[in-house]
Amino acid sequence: MNFYFDHIMKKGFASDNNAGVHPEILAAMADANTGHVTGYGHDIYTEKAVELFRKEFGPDTGVYFVFNGTGANVLGLSSLTRSYHSVICAETAHIQEDECGAPEKFTGCKLLPVETRNGKITPEAIRPHLKGFDFEHHSQPKVISISQVTEMGTVYRPEEIRALADLAHSHGMYLHMDGARIANAAVALSLPFKAFTRDCGVDVLSFGGTKNGMMMGEAVLFFNPALATETKYLRKQSMQLFSKMRFVSAQFLAYFTDGLWERSARHANRMAGLLESRVREIPGITITQKVEANGVFAIVPKPVIAPLQEKFFFYVWNEQTGEVRWMTSFDTTEDEIGQFAETLMALLA
Amino acid sequence: MNFYFDHIMKKGFASDNNAGVHPEILAAMADANTGHVTGYGHDIYTEKAVELFRKEFGPDTGVYFVFNGTGANVLGLSSLTRSYHSVICAETAHIQEDECGAPEKFTGCKLLPVETRNGKITPEAIRPHLKGFDFEHHSQPKVISISQVTEMGTVYRPEEIRALADLAHSHGMYLHMDGARIANAAVALSLPFKAFTRDCGVDVLSFGGTKNGMMMGEAVLFFNPALATETKYLRKQSMQLFSKMRFVSAQFLAYFTDGLWERSARHANRMAGLLESRVREIPGITITQKVEANGVFAIVPKPVIAPLQEKFFFYVWNEQTGEVRWMTSFDTTEDEIGQFAETLMALLA
Amino acid sequence: MNFYFDHIMKKGFASDNNAGVHPEILAAMADANTGHVTGYGHDIYTEKAVELFRKEFGPDTGVYFVFNGTGANVLGLSSLTRSYHSVICAETAHIQEDECGAPEKFTGCKLLPVETRNGKITPEAIRPHLKGFDFEHHSQPKVISISQVTEMGTVYRPEEIRALADLAHSHGMYLHMDGARIANAAVALSLPFKAFTRDCGVDVLSFGGTKNGMMMGEAVLFFNPALATETKYLRKQSMQLFSKMRFVSAQFLAYFTDGLWERSARHANRMAGLLESRVREIPGITITQKVEANGVFAIVPKPVIAPLQEKFFFYVWNEQTGEVRWMTSFDTTEDEIGQFAETLMALLA
Amino acid sequence: MNFYFDHIMKKGFASDNNAGVHPEILAAMADANTGHVTGYGHDIYTEKAVELFRKEFGPDTGVYFVFNGTGANVLGLSSLTRSYHSVICAETAHIQEDECGAPEKFTGCKLLPVETRNGKITPEAIRPHLKGFDFEHHSQPKVISISQVTEMGTVYRPEEIRALADLAHSHGMYLHMDGARIANAAVALSLPFKAFTRDCGVDVLSFGGTKNGMMMGEAVLFFNPALATETKYLRKQSMQLFSKMRFVSAQFLAYFTDGLWERSARHANRMAGLLESRVREIPGITITQKVEANGVFAIVPKPVIAPLQEKFFFYVWNEQTGEVRWMTSFDTTEDEIGQFAETLMALLA
Repeated sequence: MNFYFDHIMKKGFASDNNAGVHPEILAAMADANTGHVTGYGHDIYTEKAVELFRKEFGPDTGVYFVFNGTGANVLGLSSLTRSYHSVICAETAHIQEDECGAPEKFTGCKLLPVETRNGKITPEAIRPHLKGFDFEHHSQPKVISISQVTEMGTVYRPEEIRALADLAHSHGMYLHMDGARIANAAVALSLPFKAFTRDCGVDVLSFGGTKNGMMMGEAVLFFNPALATETKYLRKQSMQLFSKMRFVSAQFLAYFTDGLWERSARHANRMAGLLESRVREIPGITITQKVEANGVFAIVPKPVIAPLQEKFFFYVWNEQTGEVRWMTSFDTTEDEIGQFAETLMALLA
Repeated sequence: MNFYFDHIMKKGFASDNNAGVHPEILAAMADANTGHVTGYGHDIYTEKAVELFRKEFGPDTGVYFVFNGTGANVLGLSSLTRSYHSVICAETAHIQEDECGAPEKFTGCKLLPVETRNGKITPEAIRPHLKGFDFEHHSQPKVISISQVTEMGTVYRPEEIRALADLAHSHGMYLHMDGARIANAAVALSLPFKAFTRDCGVDVLSFGGTKNGMMMGEAVLFFNPALATETKYLRKQSMQLFSKMRFVSAQFLAYFTDGLWERSARHANRMAGLLESRVREIPGITITQKVEANGVFAIVPKPVIAPLQEKFFFYVWNEQTGEVRWMTSFDTTEDEIGQFAETLMALLA
Repeated sequence: MNFYFDHIMKKGFASDNNAGVHPEILAAMADANTGHVTGYGHDIYTEKAVELFRKEFGPDTGVYFVFNGTGANVLGLSSLTRSYHSVICAETAHIQEDECGAPEKFTGCKLLPVETRNGKITPEAIRPHLKGFDFEHHSQPKVISISQVTEMGTVYRPEEIRALADLAHSHGMYLHMDGARIANAAVALSLPFKAFTRDCGVDVLSFGGTKNGMMMGEAVLFFNPALATETKYLRKQSMQLFSKMRFVSAQFLAYFTDGLWERSARHANRMAGLLESRVREIPGITITQKVEANGVFAIVPKPVIAPLQEKFFFYVWNEQTGEVRWMTSFDTTEDEIGQFAETLMALLA
Repeated sequence: MNFYFDHIMKKGFASDNNAGVHPEILAAMADANTGHVTGYGHDIYTEKAVELFRKEFGPDTGVYFVFNGTGANVLGLSSLTRSYHSVICAETAHIQEDECGAPEKFTGCKLLPVETRNGKITPEAIRPHLKGFDFEHHSQPKVISISQVTEMGTVYRPEEIRALADLAHSHGMYLHMDGARIANAAVALSLPFKAFTRDCGVDVLSFGGTKNGMMMGEAVLFFNPALATETKYLRKQSMQLFSKMRFVSAQFLAYFTDGLWERSARHANRMAGLLESRVREIPGITITQKVEANGVFAIVPKPVIAPLQEKFFFYVWNEQTGEVRWMTSFDTTEDEIGQFAETLMALLA
């Protein structure tokens, strides 16, 4: 059926969440739609999905499913903090830029943004904020939060994460990771999830699926059970408890079956690499960030931006510099990238 | 496939959210899974779903989709209030009893619970709380919140709603309705939605779908555009903005197609009526609330509760009195009710 | 000088906080006004004032000075709770009725008001709220809060407090006492402070001074050091940290010197007793609460209320019943009570 | 009496709030301690104090007394914002650095710190944050907050304030001023208060008195009555409503009598100037900020810091650079400055 035919043509590079749902995910949801199960996660699908997470991350992992990425980040941070704490993050971090103040509103904490060149924060950049401990006038630093993949498409190396975790822990702080695109990072690093999260000292992880072919649903993972004693209440109070939870859980069941997450993320990353390689050669285009996952950042001559968006929608990242962001997803095709590159070349000609 | 076969057998009367998703809803979600659309509601499915709501409720209705009922209530209340306000509701209200304090946490408001016999609050019961206006020491009453259907399975008559709206408005207050089971109310009243909401003076409505065959997703409806000027920000900040919104919107498209909502709710209500009529005659059982929608409340001799739950799961409402709640849903069958009644009789024998 | 002469004449029975400051308190403040001291409580006056509190309440008592009673209650409650908790209190409690929602706003908790006849809550009245433990949908009961003296002028007996503390502790909850008029209670009970607070199982106490002759300043006392590990940050964040703290501390130094608190409270209580005895005999007047401290509640024929207020200002407690509240203070005189009683009689004649 | 004799000797340069209370202020408080007045600001002292503020700032000025500077800032900001807003301020601002997150906690807003060289923010530095308007994912910029005097001892010129106000207003935003040391600024600028606040477009002002010889008490001033419609409730809910308000008001009566505020601030500023002139010539000392009010910032060789603090207490501003802060107050004497400079010279010798 093609009721929405015109619309469908407009596949673009705006965001990996503009894609739909991977067919294997959808099929799993349909499969779960049979009979009655207890609500709010007391069902066999959720039980099995939690098992799969524990297989990946360790048997004592605390696993809490939520609706979306903002919910995941806020639930994780609120489990780690009280209102007089502060959270150090990149100035480009989703929690700082794109959550409309949900972290401050729900946790009461202060966010301390750190300048970065590539979305990755370093111990050096954090250190000036590690002050005022025990001084009641000052919000007490409690969490370092990093995004993996970063909002600039870059990927932390395991040793970089370990260094941040060590810094955090040496100050009685925690390391939180926003893993909205963690599958793309795993593929980029060729490492299992655990190797660059729990094994590197991450305390709490927002494990995202939506940007990699799921419909909705993220998991908040706790690698220290003591940190999650209050999480179930905070999840409900933060409006993130799904009544028909099985339909999130079933998605994760498929996600971890036959390497779906990896196939999808690997494809998306490969498409970004292809996009970069096609575009890099075009005169007038400057790639601004290392392409390590499924995002390409580039400076494009301003006059061509609007006409290009007409054909393939995407977002301008920085109005002043003309920097734009192109995201690929599990369903991006080589053809689309070819057409895109040709359109761009034609516009620049 | 029957991997979960054993489990499926345990269909019961615990909650209308233990049911799965109506097949027509699921089909609509699959249909929407094609191509890319802009995220966060800027898509044609959402556009059309909003249109359908406006057809039901008036062309200037503000329509905001959220994930779940708690989210809907909190978003509605936070749009109507500032932190120094109070919200008057039944002591049995979902916002008072079942949301783990989400309304207080997110709005900062005080909730003022009112005693009721049947889940319905009356002007008389509210009046003692209508005091302290303009007195800065006292939380300022700002909202009356009612549930339709109530948590006790009863249904407000339009004139009762109108009386509460008039009372609210005469004090510069608003009337909020938690419509988690609004379809069951519409069927019970044989009235279109608008006739017992907007037309009766309701200002903001949580329009629920999950308990009537949807997977997830509720709508917060504003009947005065001036009340919703900040709602889009509050929705994002309250972590209720769905990135792949089309999959909520597509559900509502199906929900309003071929009278699906009405067919489902009518069936559920009819099943509750059947359940009541079968059970009412059983010696030792006392029906405690008027059965007007899809819930039956009854006092059952305590010794039979556990064995009955073994066969058909349900919740005890009041441990002390032995009052229990049985909910029916769109997929309850006459056979199940027959078996349930027979089991109950056998246990009592 | 008598610039305010007319005004001064209007001494009344509105509230014990309408009185000024006891001269011995004011003198102590003046004495402390010499030289520089470190701000925010790191000064010798505060050190000594804390010592005095520890002498009264035990050497490990946590002592935190704040500005006012609302601040004291909120700081105490926020030290005991997280946002998903609930606080059970009398429906007449200051935290429920008179703090404009500060407890909800700052703690995020739900307040559960309990009906009372005399401002005192009983285990029986509380028990229906002791439910939903471990159930994530329900705000978790965490604190029972009582006022001593109650807002109705009554005084809890030690065994009543002990029973509430036992009930709280047996459910993993805490007992909080709002002691805005604790000195009046101590006098009424002829007991040292510790005997009816810490020794009865109170966990946290708002120790008030303002209503008994201080200018401002209350103390939040913690009888379990583990409960106060975060209090210093919460005090600052709740805007209750005084920079020139010595001027609160100096007041407490005087308050505990030569039995000032006791002399003042004893006098106020005695005046209330005198007022009651004079008024009780007047036909048409009904005393509605047992007079145990410094407040008298009475039903007065409505027509005489306004003319009486003209001469001696006071507040109507219940517009519908004509119940009024008369408070005495450290500076109430026998003459004033005589004049008041005569005026009342004349008006009723 | 000299019970605290040793201690008094340690007069230093730590903070203007380490000083006591100006004798004229204390006398006014004592004068106000006569008879009964209605609490919470409904008294003649408060009436007159409000009049004095309106004489300075315009007859329609909204005047709200609070306890302390943090309370003043939070009350002002919460009157201007809802939780999804952001507040732009200097990274050195008191609201960012020294209030333990009270603004975030109470308002829910995001604070956006801006780097500065001298504590003053410029339109250029703010502009990158003026983005994301109408975009629900982004905290909406709503307030620019400046401190006058800044935390670095510098003073905004009227034209600088006007430029920031214009920038704010052109974006539908407000300009908030933290005037904890506003008297020192007025003296530095030789301008009446109104000329560099209301007349320059400031919308809301925290008017401080504590650092200039008052005991406690600040005023939040609103120059647009429409901004203060909810302030009285927010003040109570933020625990900043003083019951015996007359004792704040009486202080302001004295503060505005016979130019007390000006005498005190002029003296403090003059002492800072003297301190700078004495210290500037000492080899090894670098003055780091323009001395415009009552604070002197200097880099001092690290080895002399501790011994100097022994004699005259003060705070290190930057542990890494050895920058220190010396504050003067209304009671600083020329002798003290002489002794201080000599001690410093001796230590450096």
